[in-house]
Amino acid sequence: MTPHTPTRKITDIGEYALIDHLKKLISKVKKSSPLSRKCKNTDLLLGIGDDAALIRWAGREHVDKKKDLLLAISKDILVEGVHFKRDWLSFYEIGRKSIVSNISDMASMGGAAPRYIVVGLALPVDISVDNVDNLFKGMDTEARKVGAVFIGGDTVKSNKDIVISITIIGEIEKQKVVLRSGATVGDYICVTGPFGDSAAGLEILKQSRVNFNFKDYCRRLVHKYRSPSHRLALAQQLLKLSNQGIRPNSMIDSSDGLAASVRILLNESSKKRNTSLGALINLEDVPLSSPFLKWASHKIKTSPSQNFSKDFLFSHPQFPWTTVLSGGEEYELVFTVSPQNLDKLKKLAKFHIIGRVSDSNFIEWNFKGRRLPHFPSGLKGYENF
Amino acid sequence: MTPHTPTRKITDIGEYALIDHLKKLISKVKKSSPLSRKCKNTDLLLGIGDDAALIRWAGREHVDKKKDLLLAISKDILVEGVHFKRDWLSFYEIGRKSIVSNISDMASMGGAAPRYIVVGLALPVDISVDNVDNLFKGMDTEARKVGAVFIGGDTVKSNKDIVISITIIGEIEKQKVVLRSGATVGDYICVTGPFGDSAAGLEILKQSRVNFNFKDYCRRLVHKYRSPSHRLALAQQLLKLSNQGIRPNSMIDSSDGLAASVRILLNESSKKRNTSLGALINLEDVPLSSPFLKWASHKIKTSPSQNFSKDFLFSHPQFPWTTVLSGGEEYELVFTVSPQNLDKLKKLAKFHIIGRVSDSNFIEWNFKGRRLPHFPSGLKGYENF
Repeated sequence: MTPHTPTRKITDIGEYALIDHLKKLISKVKKSSPLSRKCKNTDLLLGIGDDAALIRWAGREHVDKKKDLLLAISKDILVEGVHFKRDWLSFYEIGRKSIVSNISDMASMGGAAPRYIVVGLALPVDISVDNVDNLFKGMDTEARKVGAVFIGGDTVKSNKDIVISITIIGEIEKQKVVLRSGATVGDYICVTGPFGDSAAGLEILKQSRVNFNFKDYCRRLVHKYRSPSHRLALAQQLLKLSNQGIRPNSMIDSSDGLAASVRILLNESSKKRNTSLGALINLEDVPLSSPFLKWASHKIKTSPSQNFSKDFLFSHPQFPWTTVLSGGEEYELVFTVSPQNLDKLKKLAKFHIIGRVSDSNFIEWNFKGRRLPHFPSGLKGYENF
Repeated sequence: MTPHTPTRKITDIGEYALIDHLKKLISKVKKSSPLSRKCKNTDLLLGIGDDAALIRWAGREHVDKKKDLLLAISKDILVEGVHFKRDWLSFYEIGRKSIVSNISDMASMGGAAPRYIVVGLALPVDISVDNVDNLFKGMDTEARKVGAVFIGGDTVKSNKDIVISITIIGEIEKQKVVLRSGATVGDYICVTGPFGDSAAGLEILKQSRVNFNFKDYCRRLVHKYRSPSHRLALAQQLLKLSNQGIRPNSMIDSSDGLAASVRILLNESSKKRNTSLGALINLEDVPLSSPFLKWASHKIKTSPSQNFSKDFLFSHPQFPWTTVLSGGEEYELVFTVSPQNLDKLKKLAKFHIIGRVSDSNFIEWNFKGRRLPHFPSGLKGYENF
């Protein structure tokens, strides 16, 4: 460990650097990851650093079939006032969203089937039983849809804010696991989509006061923020032919925003291959919804009722690229695919190709082959500190 | 679900009732527990309601040996200002304590071997990197001692308070599992001990101001609060002969206080057997430490330097029974043992017998066969709401 001044705050180093820093402190992490290394005397195949940890496992009904089954384990912690506000979301919506976000981690590991959920709740004492009921009903709704059950947890008092901490445990065959670190030069960068809807919905809520009359496109964006979906079914489709080697090389969800997701895939893959990977992204191929384009038109002071061309909007200096690329709380998949697998995967699931992995050591965000003059520099995803 | 008024707050119903209430809301819980029921199509053997959930599991090295191995999964959530204060504990101590508390849940399931830990941290942004390091070092110290590794987690921003949410995953052979619900009439009620030290230590800290000069017995009590131990090794000793049927009938840890632990064991066992269990507790057999007795002497205005008899202290109207019986954050084991197993278990581990399970439907707390005139009525353990 390198020495550091005692006054260094965690804000100074940021979330990803903090996690890297902690990784070094924690015992045996090196021994236990990555997946590809041989792990003697342990069933831990993957530790800290991906969307989920992986433990070798075989349930009763699988032992005989000799399937190589793993448990995928992931955790999210959500804090009121940081990740959600009661003004913006109902308790039912908070509950749903907290589970969707965790299921999304299972999706991005290669479509692990969520089986067990453990919930930690810190609740202020003046919260009503009805509100707690609705929170759990929201969680339960999403859990049921994917066949997961709640197996335990802890419910404690908090001073002021609600804190929701969820651990989800899923099951996945080893050959279906897709790590963040598998991208290679020449891979197509693929995404589900659209992007920016949730962040735009949040922006609309932030700027509105009580009892606003939303226009239809605003209502749809706010709905995307309040009731997001995960892409578990699509992830499972993508891994259908994994036994034939037809599968994405790397995958992550876009919960911290598209730009951060691409950056993390490239960074993790670079580290693993001890090389420098970059990417060329074609902004014109990033999927955007029609409500988003209307909202963007309105934002850049053109009439949302007119149908402006993408060319016009994208080239406009006020087009909200940051909302598209850095907005979080969207649970799309971002993955890379080798050229030989692309057509076969396209037959399995619907997705968009937005660029390719290069050996250039940086990410170019181009619009029709050129850099946009007003494109925001230093695009960041959502970091917690 | 029974209808209720919308203004009912969670404080009105209390922690245990809230958990019962939530259980009813949550999907499939009935199907998945208790352990004794046959669970077709699922590997979940035990859901919400004990110290840990249980999932059928077999790691790579165990599949061939055909051992019936389970994963025990438990979660704790700790909130600054509710469960700890930075004034009272160093970051290192907070870290240690958070892991000890989780290992204690593994102990009380029958000595499950802790293997994997997932940490969720919500941290205020002005916290220093050094403090985070020390928090993790504390966690790591306790994890290493029992051979557990950190496999993942989530680190997010909080507005003000530190929140620590830990999920621990342990491994246990099915025949070693001890539930809360196995107590039966005639069982001896056994405990490790002593009790009250941690709560007394906390009381000392609360009443003190900065830079106090602790007397030696106070220092020792404060140390017990700051650096508690779990009883994992002892639990594993107690289950050594489980293959011969020599084992406790029920077990729990005393993290919510001795009184609450006894009550929970009796309640859960009553529910399971559809009967009413009670207990007779002999207060003179509850193990107390010598620093605690000194502190109690001081508290009831007698000189701590004199060695008063237990008789004198226990009969005193100001003897702090609530501290002994309702103080939490102590990680002793409370378990019941059938008469035929008692002598054999005594050879395996050191513990104290404090009473017996009866069919009386209430708990009698007697001192030498009589009810103490000043014994507090309505003894409660630590409830979160």
